[in-house]
Amino acid sequence: LREPSLGPSFGMKGGAAGGGYAQVVPMEDINLHFTGDFHAITSANNLLAAMIDNHIYWGNALGIDQRRVTWRRVMDMNDRALRSIVSSLGGVANGFPREDGFDITVASEVMAIFCLASDLDDLKKRLSNIIVAYTRDRKPVRAGDLNAHGAMTALLKEALAPNLVQTLEGTPAFVHGGPFANIAHGCNSVLATTTALKLCDYVVTEAGFGADLGGEKFLDIKCRKTGLAPDCAVLVATIRALKMHGGVKKEDLKSENLKALGAGMANLARHVENVQKFGIVPVISINRFSADTDAEIALVKEHAKKLGVEALMADHWAEGGKGAADVARAVVKAAESGKSKLKLLYPDDMPLVEKIRTIATQIYRAKDIDVHKPVRDQLESFEKMGYGKLPVCMAKTQYSFTTNADTKGAPEDHVVTVREVRLSAGAEFVVAICGEIMTMPGLPRVPAADSIDVGTDGRIVGLF
Amino acid sequence: LREPSLGPSFGMKGGAAGGGYAQVVPMEDINLHFTGDFHAITSANNLLAAMIDNHIYWGNALGIDQRRVTWRRVMDMNDRALRSIVSSLGGVANGFPREDGFDITVASEVMAIFCLASDLDDLKKRLSNIIVAYTRDRKPVRAGDLNAHGAMTALLKEALAPNLVQTLEGTPAFVHGGPFANIAHGCNSVLATTTALKLCDYVVTEAGFGADLGGEKFLDIKCRKTGLAPDCAVLVATIRALKMHGGVKKEDLKSENLKALGAGMANLARHVENVQKFGIVPVISINRFSADTDAEIALVKEHAKKLGVEALMADHWAEGGKGAADVARAVVKAAESGKSKLKLLYPDDMPLVEKIRTIATQIYRAKDIDVHKPVRDQLESFEKMGYGKLPVCMAKTQYSFTTNADTKGAPEDHVVTVREVRLSAGAEFVVAICGEIMTMPGLPRVPAADSIDVGTDGRIVGLF
Amino acid sequence: LREPSLGPSFGMKGGAAGGGYAQVVPMEDINLHFTGDFHAITSANNLLAAMIDNHIYWGNALGIDQRRVTWRRVMDMNDRALRSIVSSLGGVANGFPREDGFDITVASEVMAIFCLASDLDDLKKRLSNIIVAYTRDRKPVRAGDLNAHGAMTALLKEALAPNLVQTLEGTPAFVHGGPFANIAHGCNSVLATTTALKLCDYVVTEAGFGADLGGEKFLDIKCRKTGLAPDCAVLVATIRALKMHGGVKKEDLKSENLKALGAGMANLARHVENVQKFGIVPVISINRFSADTDAEIALVKEHAKKLGVEALMADHWAEGGKGAADVARAVVKAAESGKSKLKLLYPDDMPLVEKIRTIATQIYRAKDIDVHKPVRDQLESFEKMGYGKLPVCMAKTQYSFTTNADTKGAPEDHVVTVREVRLSAGAEFVVAICGEIMTMPGLPRVPAADSIDVGTDGRIVGLF
Amino acid sequence: LREPSLGPSFGMKGGAAGGGYAQVVPMEDINLHFTGDFHAITSANNLLAAMIDNHIYWGNALGIDQRRVTWRRVMDMNDRALRSIVSSLGGVANGFPREDGFDITVASEVMAIFCLASDLDDLKKRLSNIIVAYTRDRKPVRAGDLNAHGAMTALLKEALAPNLVQTLEGTPAFVHGGPFANIAHGCNSVLATTTALKLCDYVVTEAGFGADLGGEKFLDIKCRKTGLAPDCAVLVATIRALKMHGGVKKEDLKSENLKALGAGMANLARHVENVQKFGIVPVISINRFSADTDAEIALVKEHAKKLGVEALMADHWAEGGKGAADVARAVVKAAESGKSKLKLLYPDDMPLVEKIRTIATQIYRAKDIDVHKPVRDQLESFEKMGYGKLPVCMAKTQYSFTTNADTKGAPEDHVVTVREVRLSAGAEFVVAICGEIMTMPGLPRVPAADSIDVGTDGRIVGLF
Repeated sequence: LREPSLGPSFGMKGGAAGGGYAQVVPMEDINLHFTGDFHAITSANNLLAAMIDNHIYWGNALGIDQRRVTWRRVMDMNDRALRSIVSSLGGVANGFPREDGFDITVASEVMAIFCLASDLDDLKKRLSNIIVAYTRDRKPVRAGDLNAHGAMTALLKEALAPNLVQTLEGTPAFVHGGPFANIAHGCNSVLATTTALKLCDYVVTEAGFGADLGGEKFLDIKCRKTGLAPDCAVLVATIRALKMHGGVKKEDLKSENLKALGAGMANLARHVENVQKFGIVPVISINRFSADTDAEIALVKEHAKKLGVEALMADHWAEGGKGAADVARAVVKAAESGKSKLKLLYPDDMPLVEKIRTIATQIYRAKDIDVHKPVRDQLESFEKMGYGKLPVCMAKTQYSFTTNADTKGAPEDHVVTVREVRLSAGAEFVVAICGEIMTMPGLPRVPAADSIDVGTDGRIVGLF
Repeated sequence: LREPSLGPSFGMKGGAAGGGYAQVVPMEDINLHFTGDFHAITSANNLLAAMIDNHIYWGNALGIDQRRVTWRRVMDMNDRALRSIVSSLGGVANGFPREDGFDITVASEVMAIFCLASDLDDLKKRLSNIIVAYTRDRKPVRAGDLNAHGAMTALLKEALAPNLVQTLEGTPAFVHGGPFANIAHGCNSVLATTTALKLCDYVVTEAGFGADLGGEKFLDIKCRKTGLAPDCAVLVATIRALKMHGGVKKEDLKSENLKALGAGMANLARHVENVQKFGIVPVISINRFSADTDAEIALVKEHAKKLGVEALMADHWAEGGKGAADVARAVVKAAESGKSKLKLLYPDDMPLVEKIRTIATQIYRAKDIDVHKPVRDQLESFEKMGYGKLPVCMAKTQYSFTTNADTKGAPEDHVVTVREVRLSAGAEFVVAICGEIMTMPGLPRVPAADSIDVGTDGRIVGLF
Repeated sequence: LREPSLGPSFGMKGGAAGGGYAQVVPMEDINLHFTGDFHAITSANNLLAAMIDNHIYWGNALGIDQRRVTWRRVMDMNDRALRSIVSSLGGVANGFPREDGFDITVASEVMAIFCLASDLDDLKKRLSNIIVAYTRDRKPVRAGDLNAHGAMTALLKEALAPNLVQTLEGTPAFVHGGPFANIAHGCNSVLATTTALKLCDYVVTEAGFGADLGGEKFLDIKCRKTGLAPDCAVLVATIRALKMHGGVKKEDLKSENLKALGAGMANLARHVENVQKFGIVPVISINRFSADTDAEIALVKEHAKKLGVEALMADHWAEGGKGAADVARAVVKAAESGKSKLKLLYPDDMPLVEKIRTIATQIYRAKDIDVHKPVRDQLESFEKMGYGKLPVCMAKTQYSFTTNADTKGAPEDHVVTVREVRLSAGAEFVVAICGEIMTMPGLPRVPAADSIDVGTDGRIVGLF
Repeated sequence: LREPSLGPSFGMKGGAAGGGYAQVVPMEDINLHFTGDFHAITSANNLLAAMIDNHIYWGNALGIDQRRVTWRRVMDMNDRALRSIVSSLGGVANGFPREDGFDITVASEVMAIFCLASDLDDLKKRLSNIIVAYTRDRKPVRAGDLNAHGAMTALLKEALAPNLVQTLEGTPAFVHGGPFANIAHGCNSVLATTTALKLCDYVVTEAGFGADLGGEKFLDIKCRKTGLAPDCAVLVATIRALKMHGGVKKEDLKSENLKALGAGMANLARHVENVQKFGIVPVISINRFSADTDAEIALVKEHAKKLGVEALMADHWAEGGKGAADVARAVVKAAESGKSKLKLLYPDDMPLVEKIRTIATQIYRAKDIDVHKPVRDQLESFEKMGYGKLPVCMAKTQYSFTTNADTKGAPEDHVVTVREVRLSAGAEFVVAICGEIMTMPGLPRVPAADSIDVGTDGRIVGLF
């Protein structure tokens, strides 16, 4: 599983260690500092940032163009005020002013690297490869050029060990790493997954943000890089969400609506197809909500049957492990069948722009992509720098197959506009940003922090 | 003892867990993230900052004047680029632009509060009292008005428990808290001290930055607030430093120079007098350096005898506990004598400006203080707001009794200019800034981080 | 004619008072400060800006949201450093920090108002109507609310009188006003035109940036507002430009190329059609260049004949008035014919978005327009505020019918994307910005200023 | 006389062309754009600024350190929002961000140069000598290095001719130039003065801000550089002001108060002495106010007699030239006596810091000056760069002999702190800034612009 970030915990979402009888514990700690992994990542990221500005300050031997520093600072906080800043103000002693900004820690390339590193050496090598800036004549400057990677590795050394926790029922679970699914690949650490595989017969992992976005990235990035291949994919659905995809408004979700549910199944059907394109056998797990009616459940199961996929109800929230037993059995069956044969969506040597097009047309079912000249030029420059073989990490809304969060269902014929591309040379992927993607959230009008408190008994309240 | 900050560890000073045979262990951990206390303080400080800007963003019901936000963000890093920034740029969605900046974590008022809090409730109350901004008509706005203190307390809850470590010889030691001795009171946490007092017969604690600066603050702030009273004060001196106070240049310190040493003793004599003014019996511990000659040692002892104080050599660096045995015996003798009777320097109800004058003339032996009109006005406004009874926390160079770091020895007749005053309403003291005091250091040309690394054996090198 | 701006004069373009024998004099003065009109406009624009920030500073009774100040400062200079700034830094006494920027003076709405005002009272009324900011709840704040319009009018009073100059041959000419054709309507002042019409039989005026852009704006904005209606339109072409539209590269323009010229005529044909759509009789004036060949000239004339339009050579550069006599005769003939009957392109009460669509499809021959949701919302808000009847002022590259400067010839089937819309409530039009439009140019690598000098004889050199 | 600036005209002071019967006309024009001289100076100043940033943008061949650009932009406006800005924001295309700011036009070194230049060639040479920035290794970069001086001279060429106007009675007067008396030397142009001297028998000129500040600068800077030497000095006093120097509050000035007036005479006596130190014969002109009583007038005359100086009433406000006839006669007598022999206060080759000390102790009667190390270092660096022989231009409040505007009368024993020094290498003086000096004023709560308007008759109202 991924570790939760402090930002959202104090912001809108509340904690992220589960709920009801489906919790990992110690829940309170996991939602706060836990083992300090995120703090270590924050420190490593910001040490690199400080060393960049320090290098410029002390003569700038590498000739860094301060307008072209691409490395941003991070904070594990939802803080819109830091999205865009001007730093190094206040005179000669504070360095050369430049436009700068903070992302949330989970959006740091260090987080992505941390999750993809196979061991300490690989971590150091990847950190060294991070491109932090360009010179006036557009030559890349790397963390290794600043000799920052050693100290960064020292800061991350302890954190790299996966954190073993347990569920309320005592099942062991690794909670380790957690890159932003918006901007990065959204999976927990490779080390946690491989460690788990050595210890157990069945390992369940998650890929944030849907089978189209998170699933594609899990398979095309994490599996591609590590040789991992899943034996089965669980598609988690809720009847609520399917009804929304069928056109029901949020306030009407509590009433039975078979027609809308039927229409919304088109969305689920597409996820099934997408998973099958990768050669993986899908199983559908319907997370039970109290408003779900029998007719609705029957409808979903019937549709699933037509798709040739098993759909099962899961109620681990209310019943713990027992509630998910049916799903678990179906998963075991699918996994044991040996039918899953991972087929990556595109080969390494496809040009970057074609990789983006492939994902957009094959997975999001777009008619085409729209890539403006400057973005196209940048992709070409990445290829010239030798990064053409990297996979592409799509950054897109998770609420729609299109780039418009409001377009529900299973749309076709839309165009995916690539607004910006970024090179994560250390994490070893190219990020394609489609639509408005926020790398530093803000707090809501009444943030969760408003009701978090420590009682007179010394217990924390309001955290989840 | 105080916890070390990551900033200097990766900057100039190297780690701060001791050296030679006088170390606390696990040294590597203590110098890195340790138990995450500093990260918790950083998070609490920055959550408050985010909530301030968020409040302004969502309608600003409290009428905060964004030019008068006094709460700064912090980072546990030496980063001059963040000293002075403009935040909330980038358009309407990112909030109201304002001048802002980062201090190093140890300079946060949260750190000072953390170290002075007597328990979790006191911590929460003090956090709530922090003044973070003023309205357009100069009314204070507190952390409690933003309802931030509960969540901040939750973030600090685990960190508040003192960290028990041990020396290489197995002696238990608490390493907990560490406010910036420049800007705050520079002592470890009250909780660590009181916990230790319950466990042992003799408790040794430190007060950063000299008997004039650190010692005064330890007694007039920490002891005043807690009722603690030391039975003996150890003045730590080195022959090197005394020779510098006698006028020897850094490059000539290795040669014997009795004349300069004699002159430099005036500095030590004044520290002795200062401690005696507080009613405490001093003992002088001369930390041995290899270049110290017998004649020099004899001279110091002789001078000390004239002052009526015991001076003893300590060589714990080379010999561990055994090396400091003489000093320890003298301390026990002094403590057991019962002669120490703590006498605070000024009463609570002395006007703030007079408190500053008292410290400057009595301890620094200045002729007078120089307080400009705007600073004087601000002190008066603090008194009107009801903060007149707070003690004063002097922020001044530790290298001289004057505000000029180069003026060595035991100067008199100098004038102490108070450049700025700040109200730490949560920590419950008024900071008087005299001369240039940096609250966010920068990295040197070749930072320590440059040589910190993790070897192929997984061990960290270059950290100390 | 329009007055030249200092910015380009010291930047790339050199002066703008003509060349060869076709000059207005005193040329040197016209290219420098002339009668100070631009300085007066600069002062009026910036007085308003200062009064906005001053209002916010002194209590902000109108509740201006400083993030939503839309009024920018101006300078009559090419200065990229001022395009985007943060102002009011430096502490409480300097006001509330905000994102701000400078445009070049000609892009000021004051310039547009100045050119469209029918008299001093109308000027004052329009200045008063300028929307300078919005409150937090999106109510407009006008210059009149700040009581700035009176003082602005006082600053502009003298400048409003048209400047009468003469050509080298003594023909009188008004040089007055000069709004940026990129962002505004690009015609000289209404007062100069109406004054001229009272004095002469034939008045020639110009509309910057092509018949598609400048011509459309002259007719749909200036003529619509004033009731003026031209008797004839002169389309100025060069064989060089037509060859470029036919696909010839800049470096090959000196060789005869009939095929490309023929292809390029499609561009001219479309301009002819566009003018005819407005009900105006066009005459084509081909400004002679030395590289034009007889065959090329013949080809253009022949094509023109097919379009039913007279095309004549003009060589006023080399021959002064005599060189343009043929064109003049054709113009008189066309004007006297009485065939021109001005027909505006769209009615006042067409919705704003439809006005944009009409111009794009009818004049630029786009397939459609692309207006994103936020832009569409803004247009609607303009309509709700009562500005739905205003004409639209297109801001678009002058180098192509499309928004891409490199697309030459007579393209069809393109889509015009409206990036941004701005309300000029004083000038009384809505600006629709399509593509990248710069409102503050920069200086080139070697600016013209580099070679401008005053000789020992006191004469200015290098200005044109 | 000096030309008025638009800033104060629209701000607090109202116009500056006199009042009552003592006006120069056309008053309205003089207070607005007049002959455009200030606009020309603004343009020249800002062209240089644009060329600096443009040079940095296009490769920075001169190696300018953007933190050490000392040349500021100017605007003829009171605009506090522009005092301190960050420019070149918005990405790579807008250049390198830096801290920047605007002064009011009159504070531009171009203005000072303009007023001290003896002819067009001298103007160009001085413009070329302006130091605009320093390189990273502290080498000065001059306007001439950027090749900006030629174009700047072209912009100033017309303005350099003195503007001849007349008083209401028809006496000719030159109104030309007007450097900020705060930061520059505060006299009208050398060219106007020398032109006037060729035309008339008696030429009266002014020196802004008192005999101590303006007078000293007139003599030690303007006269030193040009060889001019006045035959007589008129000290302008008012009984109101003398009473304030004697301790009367503003609201009590209307009542007779002989005792305070007597005390206040000490201030006038010192001005007399100061003028006499320069070897010039003073005449006192008492500008009449309606509240002045006979007893008060008699007292002033009596005191003046004791000082051996003639004191005469002047009432040109009510009576025009006739009202000042007595003063004029006294001036003629003094001038004809030939007793004035100009003696400069200090020789050219006195070290800069001693020049400052001489002015402070001799003219302001300070006990000493206080020059901090960084300021002292800078003065030394000016001397090393070859500017040691320049005179010093004091920037200090005009309301007191001390640096504290509230200290009235004839104080002694005060210390003048030099806060900052600036090198005006083109104007050829060193500015010593003592106390808080504002180089960009702000508008008051209700600016004069609020009531300036153009009536329906086309006349400007509210300007004076």
